[in-house]
Amino acid sequence: MSLLVEKTAGGREYKVKDMSQAEFGRLEIELSEVEMPGLMSCRVEFGPSQPFKGAKITGSLHMTIQTAVLIETLTALGAEVRWCSCNIFSTQDHAAAAIARDSAAVFAWKGETLQEYWWCTERALDWGPGGGPDLIVDDGGDATLLIHEGVKAEGIYEKTGQLPDPSSTDNTEFQIVLTIIRDGLRVDPKKYTKMKDRLVGVSEETTTGVKRLYQMQANGTLLFPAINVNDSVTKSKFDNMYGCRHSLPDGLMRATDVMIAGKIAVVCGYGDVGKGCAAALKHAGARVVVTEIDPICALQALMEGLQVLTLEDVVSVADIFVTTTGNKGIIMVDHMKKMKNNAIVCNIGHFDNEIDIHGLEAYPGVKRITIKPQTDRWVFPETNSGIIVLAEGRLVNLGCAAGHPSFVMSCSFTNQVIAQLELWKEKRTGKYEKKVYVLPKHLDEKVAALHLGKLGAKLTKLTKAQADYISVPVEGPYKPPHYRY
Amino acid sequence: MSLLVEKTAGGREYKVKDMSQAEFGRLEIELSEVEMPGLMSCRVEFGPSQPFKGAKITGSLHMTIQTAVLIETLTALGAEVRWCSCNIFSTQDHAAAAIARDSAAVFAWKGETLQEYWWCTERALDWGPGGGPDLIVDDGGDATLLIHEGVKAEGIYEKTGQLPDPSSTDNTEFQIVLTIIRDGLRVDPKKYTKMKDRLVGVSEETTTGVKRLYQMQANGTLLFPAINVNDSVTKSKFDNMYGCRHSLPDGLMRATDVMIAGKIAVVCGYGDVGKGCAAALKHAGARVVVTEIDPICALQALMEGLQVLTLEDVVSVADIFVTTTGNKGIIMVDHMKKMKNNAIVCNIGHFDNEIDIHGLEAYPGVKRITIKPQTDRWVFPETNSGIIVLAEGRLVNLGCAAGHPSFVMSCSFTNQVIAQLELWKEKRTGKYEKKVYVLPKHLDEKVAALHLGKLGAKLTKLTKAQADYISVPVEGPYKPPHYRY
Amino acid sequence: MSLLVEKTAGGREYKVKDMSQAEFGRLEIELSEVEMPGLMSCRVEFGPSQPFKGAKITGSLHMTIQTAVLIETLTALGAEVRWCSCNIFSTQDHAAAAIARDSAAVFAWKGETLQEYWWCTERALDWGPGGGPDLIVDDGGDATLLIHEGVKAEGIYEKTGQLPDPSSTDNTEFQIVLTIIRDGLRVDPKKYTKMKDRLVGVSEETTTGVKRLYQMQANGTLLFPAINVNDSVTKSKFDNMYGCRHSLPDGLMRATDVMIAGKIAVVCGYGDVGKGCAAALKHAGARVVVTEIDPICALQALMEGLQVLTLEDVVSVADIFVTTTGNKGIIMVDHMKKMKNNAIVCNIGHFDNEIDIHGLEAYPGVKRITIKPQTDRWVFPETNSGIIVLAEGRLVNLGCAAGHPSFVMSCSFTNQVIAQLELWKEKRTGKYEKKVYVLPKHLDEKVAALHLGKLGAKLTKLTKAQADYISVPVEGPYKPPHYRY
Amino acid sequence: MSLLVEKTAGGREYKVKDMSQAEFGRLEIELSEVEMPGLMSCRVEFGPSQPFKGAKITGSLHMTIQTAVLIETLTALGAEVRWCSCNIFSTQDHAAAAIARDSAAVFAWKGETLQEYWWCTERALDWGPGGGPDLIVDDGGDATLLIHEGVKAEGIYEKTGQLPDPSSTDNTEFQIVLTIIRDGLRVDPKKYTKMKDRLVGVSEETTTGVKRLYQMQANGTLLFPAINVNDSVTKSKFDNMYGCRHSLPDGLMRATDVMIAGKIAVVCGYGDVGKGCAAALKHAGARVVVTEIDPICALQALMEGLQVLTLEDVVSVADIFVTTTGNKGIIMVDHMKKMKNNAIVCNIGHFDNEIDIHGLEAYPGVKRITIKPQTDRWVFPETNSGIIVLAEGRLVNLGCAAGHPSFVMSCSFTNQVIAQLELWKEKRTGKYEKKVYVLPKHLDEKVAALHLGKLGAKLTKLTKAQADYISVPVEGPYKPPHYRY
Repeated sequence: MSLLVEKTAGGREYKVKDMSQAEFGRLEIELSEVEMPGLMSCRVEFGPSQPFKGAKITGSLHMTIQTAVLIETLTALGAEVRWCSCNIFSTQDHAAAAIARDSAAVFAWKGETLQEYWWCTERALDWGPGGGPDLIVDDGGDATLLIHEGVKAEGIYEKTGQLPDPSSTDNTEFQIVLTIIRDGLRVDPKKYTKMKDRLVGVSEETTTGVKRLYQMQANGTLLFPAINVNDSVTKSKFDNMYGCRHSLPDGLMRATDVMIAGKIAVVCGYGDVGKGCAAALKHAGARVVVTEIDPICALQALMEGLQVLTLEDVVSVADIFVTTTGNKGIIMVDHMKKMKNNAIVCNIGHFDNEIDIHGLEAYPGVKRITIKPQTDRWVFPETNSGIIVLAEGRLVNLGCAAGHPSFVMSCSFTNQVIAQLELWKEKRTGKYEKKVYVLPKHLDEKVAALHLGKLGAKLTKLTKAQADYISVPVEGPYKPPHYRY
Repeated sequence: MSLLVEKTAGGREYKVKDMSQAEFGRLEIELSEVEMPGLMSCRVEFGPSQPFKGAKITGSLHMTIQTAVLIETLTALGAEVRWCSCNIFSTQDHAAAAIARDSAAVFAWKGETLQEYWWCTERALDWGPGGGPDLIVDDGGDATLLIHEGVKAEGIYEKTGQLPDPSSTDNTEFQIVLTIIRDGLRVDPKKYTKMKDRLVGVSEETTTGVKRLYQMQANGTLLFPAINVNDSVTKSKFDNMYGCRHSLPDGLMRATDVMIAGKIAVVCGYGDVGKGCAAALKHAGARVVVTEIDPICALQALMEGLQVLTLEDVVSVADIFVTTTGNKGIIMVDHMKKMKNNAIVCNIGHFDNEIDIHGLEAYPGVKRITIKPQTDRWVFPETNSGIIVLAEGRLVNLGCAAGHPSFVMSCSFTNQVIAQLELWKEKRTGKYEKKVYVLPKHLDEKVAALHLGKLGAKLTKLTKAQADYISVPVEGPYKPPHYRY
Repeated sequence: MSLLVEKTAGGREYKVKDMSQAEFGRLEIELSEVEMPGLMSCRVEFGPSQPFKGAKITGSLHMTIQTAVLIETLTALGAEVRWCSCNIFSTQDHAAAAIARDSAAVFAWKGETLQEYWWCTERALDWGPGGGPDLIVDDGGDATLLIHEGVKAEGIYEKTGQLPDPSSTDNTEFQIVLTIIRDGLRVDPKKYTKMKDRLVGVSEETTTGVKRLYQMQANGTLLFPAINVNDSVTKSKFDNMYGCRHSLPDGLMRATDVMIAGKIAVVCGYGDVGKGCAAALKHAGARVVVTEIDPICALQALMEGLQVLTLEDVVSVADIFVTTTGNKGIIMVDHMKKMKNNAIVCNIGHFDNEIDIHGLEAYPGVKRITIKPQTDRWVFPETNSGIIVLAEGRLVNLGCAAGHPSFVMSCSFTNQVIAQLELWKEKRTGKYEKKVYVLPKHLDEKVAALHLGKLGAKLTKLTKAQADYISVPVEGPYKPPHYRY
Repeated sequence: MSLLVEKTAGGREYKVKDMSQAEFGRLEIELSEVEMPGLMSCRVEFGPSQPFKGAKITGSLHMTIQTAVLIETLTALGAEVRWCSCNIFSTQDHAAAAIARDSAAVFAWKGETLQEYWWCTERALDWGPGGGPDLIVDDGGDATLLIHEGVKAEGIYEKTGQLPDPSSTDNTEFQIVLTIIRDGLRVDPKKYTKMKDRLVGVSEETTTGVKRLYQMQANGTLLFPAINVNDSVTKSKFDNMYGCRHSLPDGLMRATDVMIAGKIAVVCGYGDVGKGCAAALKHAGARVVVTEIDPICALQALMEGLQVLTLEDVVSVADIFVTTTGNKGIIMVDHMKKMKNNAIVCNIGHFDNEIDIHGLEAYPGVKRITIKPQTDRWVFPETNSGIIVLAEGRLVNLGCAAGHPSFVMSCSFTNQVIAQLELWKEKRTGKYEKKVYVLPKHLDEKVAALHLGKLGAKLTKLTKAQADYISVPVEGPYKPPHYRY
């Protein structure tokens, strides 16, 4: 796509695939609202007082229907919003169109190039002369990364006059990041520094982004407060597990229509995401083999009747491979060469470096046959046997299906709203330092409570005597911080 | 679409949505071949001897990728083939295009009107001056029905000179059938009679069609031999159950993206299809309630931890409703009025009369909002509350997703190939009378055996002493006819 | 035990382990009655008319608490009853005591020798001078066998004066049978012939006994009518499957307390019993491997995510082995030698010839360590490694636990009562020839219906229009005979 | 039993039910050793260096076969041990006998009175003139409680000369505790104070005991260091969950033989224990209803397809009730009155105050019928309808079955050994203050690793690059402290 910003009649900027899909997006957003009681409760509870009045929020998070309901919850509470996706394949174009038309500045479409991806990120962060953002909703940490790298480069430039040099790195994607920063520096040598100074904080959605934040906290390089939304119980134990239990088979089915029953499926990693994936595959009738580095998670897999082996043990007999590790270099081209014809290889971890797509592309004589978008058959010359790679190694549930369903995302996103409210409310109190925080347990419990009614559940109430007996307040929180659920 | 037959360069007739999708269809057909070991084994075993040489086969069966592999198995064995779909929503247009281009005369597209549907059926049955078909592959019995009704009308016409009168029935669809027959009669008053005389037999795919055949057998009106493929164990206990276990959630997810976990799902009917549906929904985390008329099936549901109630008991609290009964009038508009906002209503039984779509359409002031094709929200005026109806009450797995996956359809379709071979081989021997037959158990076991290798299974061999002890041949069949699996 | 018949104060014969357990048995019988709605309904429906008045019924069926409720249902309907167990380990001594004290002549105790076992069988069949039995309730067919062998021997004796010769066979158990017949012959050379002449018929409980009956029917040697209760749907698809799903883990736990989760469990045979066993082990967290001879059952196992291999493939890695085949010679001593230390080996099929106990006993230098009754560790001299054999290869659920629970046995036994009623009602009508019959479907459905209320289920009623549409009566039966459930 | 201490030939004290069961106990201990790889690895790794040389360890923990393997691991590492059970019903008498004969001073039998229970506890703590214990292994905290109460009373006595007054409390059990302390005080007014002074620390096994410890830490009354073993992941997420998944149905089956399939089962509490119980009941075919106070746990239950209601909602329709809360007053006599005839009521939480046994006993006209030990039917006079209470409201898995299986207890007990080693090693370093500690994660991971080989699992190894990428050492620990598994 040509990278020109467009404007709505009202003057709001956007760049989406097809504005004519806005009405379709609106209809699906309305369906989702019924499935997202947490977010809708926030609108009811906080809408009248407009707590985000004056707040400019940038989001970098999969631009889906569910995210649309999040965005419109933020705007319903008074915020002004700019948004991009955090993955080149995860945007739902009808959702992007509806939001662009009705509610916020959106820069996102399904199937961005990396160049386009970072252009969108930069656009979402750039609030123009009025300044901004005040807050960031991040997923995977790319918006946070851009600011941190920008500030670093501006510091060097101020001291040495030296611009960042894209050719200084082999990493294609990081070359793009440096280019964007360099070009920005030429226009405004304090662009990211000013951004950082204004920024109240970030709330981060996912394991991978959280890992980055804790690393920065440990290094002392974190530039603003961060709330770790991922580790709210109502996020990591729900979205990561139950979301993937739903959306992994959805992705596999839409991409390949393959029968899962009777197959051997390998799940690399048995964390929350791996647990959800393994449960889904087992329930669908597959025989599941887990690979793990952590003996505790391995023992959990065994207790569920799953086999725990190394990838090498099963690479030539399995039918379906899913990476969920959050680590890199899990399924390499040398593994892929040994797989059965039409073995399916996909990733549901945040980044696309779990599967060695570069190694595959570089394999001499390999042939890529695109069955349909996000479903490629790669044929090795020696054997004329092929494997099927989904979503080019990116998140299969978002690349090949519609991501997690609304209900579970309502849990996650209600945490996001609460985190953003907390950061904004405390913006001048100094409560939050340049550290990583998790939400207090009573808010976590509140998020859960907001989702019970929709499912017809009734909670039991503690008596005072019972509450005293277990040393908790009658109204909660009910568990110590180390409780694992 | 305009109902004009087109022709390939080679002169073969067809009518499909978009011939440019042929290559996409071909790629998916090639993927399916790897997943359909039964059909591919038939090609290897029987291809060289060309047993269908001279046979003209008409098929009326969902024109999907899997069916494409079936068609090309029939042609690989020497047959000439004409095909239509047996459902207005079930055609996969890329599959139809590939077959039309490469292998057989196809008349099918996704989203036919009823008028178009019966036009396609009639086209598939009409082999022109050379005569035909010799054999029919039927699913639901519409091709068989058309011939039987045609013969009946021609008999009346011959005796009384009276043409069939479409206005004699209230049933819209049957009006169309009578119109087609009437128009045919005007051209050739012996059209269906000649067809019947030539016909060697039919093999029927599904419960509903089989029920019709047994009724005709009981009434003495069956005009040619029929093989009941549905009741091969490797069909009804696999395709009906494991196929639906796969494709029901697939259809729900693609149509609505709704989270199944935590929801109350009602499955009407606990036969093979209902068992598969209930298992899928339970595994996905729903609380499943079954409705049943048969106390034995009800007791089976209870043993699996499912609740058994009447529809009236749960209509106002459930979230998802699926009909699987093969009966009619299951979910009526009066039920639908009482449902929760955005309750999902769908059918996975063969015909579209399980859900009272007519009652819904006729409801005063009801509003239909099409979210996307095959996903409609119907809003009742009194409550402004809506329900979501999938595939207009037709097969949700084929209307909203890709139907059953290849592997399980390979079991079903291998039975079809074997049934067609049997009918054709015995065409002049009188072995088959105008009755309904099932395939012998050793063929059923053979179909299963052809599918084990793909899944890495190894069978145990009986010793002679063991075989004698249980009074079976070493090589099978291993079970008495009444065995239930 | 000394084989002397004892008598109650009222003069009824019995031989049980410990009459002082009668009260404990009575308490458990009363609990079971609440769980056996089918039998209790029979008492309510038929009790007043005393249909069994004058009928003498011999039963050879595990003398458990559940059987006690069956026996007292038969007596409540007017029958006089004599009973023995059909397995040396399956008697629950408190149940036997309660029945002996209160209701019927019982000859059974836990841990009979084979000699004692056949003595009990003979006692149960011997009604003394008044003659009897009129009816037999059989399980596995041993009572039926004894009569058939007796009649055969008496025929030979009549013709040739030759007595049966126990030394003519190597089979230890059959030597005992021949001895009993020979001793009987000496007293009354028409004992079994008279018994046969009087006998109205037998109803047979289990797969193994039914197999024998069909063999006799095929050979033309069946001496009286037989009703195959096993193949009532409400028997084989419930007791065999759901009963074993409950009682296999119960037996394993009581015998060994072993953790099933994480273990590799091999289930030999995937019929109804195997399906129940595999489900239980999988649910308990084991990784289940199935061995099968039948490709259809094998494919079913695969669809459930189970691995299908040969015993040889897994013999040295698995932890738990269960035979369910109904065949013989499944786990041989050569297999057992290769097993891991403390591998558990058990059988849940009717007869004890699935596991090669004789081969184990005869193994040079093998050492048997009895951990507790029915739990033996056998140590091989070469490796000093042992395996744990349960119930000496006999039914593990009855030998090591309490057998199937009451509710599912209520289904089975209600079929027995109905079968006995039917035989007795038609005793003079000639309706039943010397063949094997199954109960008609409407009775099968009735049995199921009697068990729904206890579980809170509500059935849906067909409308007349719906019933006509699927060509069944409104009140059922609802399925064709070939339906597989 | 008469409360006289006996002595072995070698002079070691004990009091057990029946010393003749020692050999049976020994055989089962040997079987368990094969299933407890963690403990056996400790013997191999630490045995040679005899790290516990000189240590006197008192244990108050269910005296089962598994605990026997723990005790003999402690002695194999050089410790001298005295032991009592922490529950009046949980002792396995053959285990107690074997240990008393061979390894340690045991004071425990199945079916102690409360008086006997506390006598045993006091005996286990009393090391005589040589002094002791140095370390305590506690489960539920009763040994710890006795010392704390003793020290408190001695302090008061020293200051005021006042003896503890048993009549000062209504709580029967606490009266016994005060009596024991009072009697001790008369003999030695510094008995518990000296004990406390010598004590290096306690390691606590279970949720309930840990709760007490944290309360004491919060109040500043904790007298010695404590290691919270319960919250090792390899304890609470394994023993609590997978142990109960195994042993709850085991207890239900042994006590009642009731069919679980088809029943409505209520699980009060959905923590680790509740999750295990609910999974077991669901897998056995029950329909499970959960009661919860915590919205997060409630939402987890919903995601697994379980219904969440209050006890009041289901009290009159459910068949089985299990309390798992760790709280008190869960099922009251008013609930029990409303239950169906023969509803089963049991508890699997540590203490017996979850079910209102006192209320039941005090109910006017109630009748108790003991079916067999630990299985009582209580009949209400108004309805003549009864409920079945298991193990008098104490731990059903230990009271009615054999508790958790060896393999999972090996995880828990390996943590105990490691905790005891750590306390003993650091006894003079001041590393541990009078606080509650959890074991470091690398030890937790080590415990898991020791249990993988037995189940045939193979771990994947991180490369250095991968370890750096996720910021963990190659050899672990692999997770941050807040990780929930």
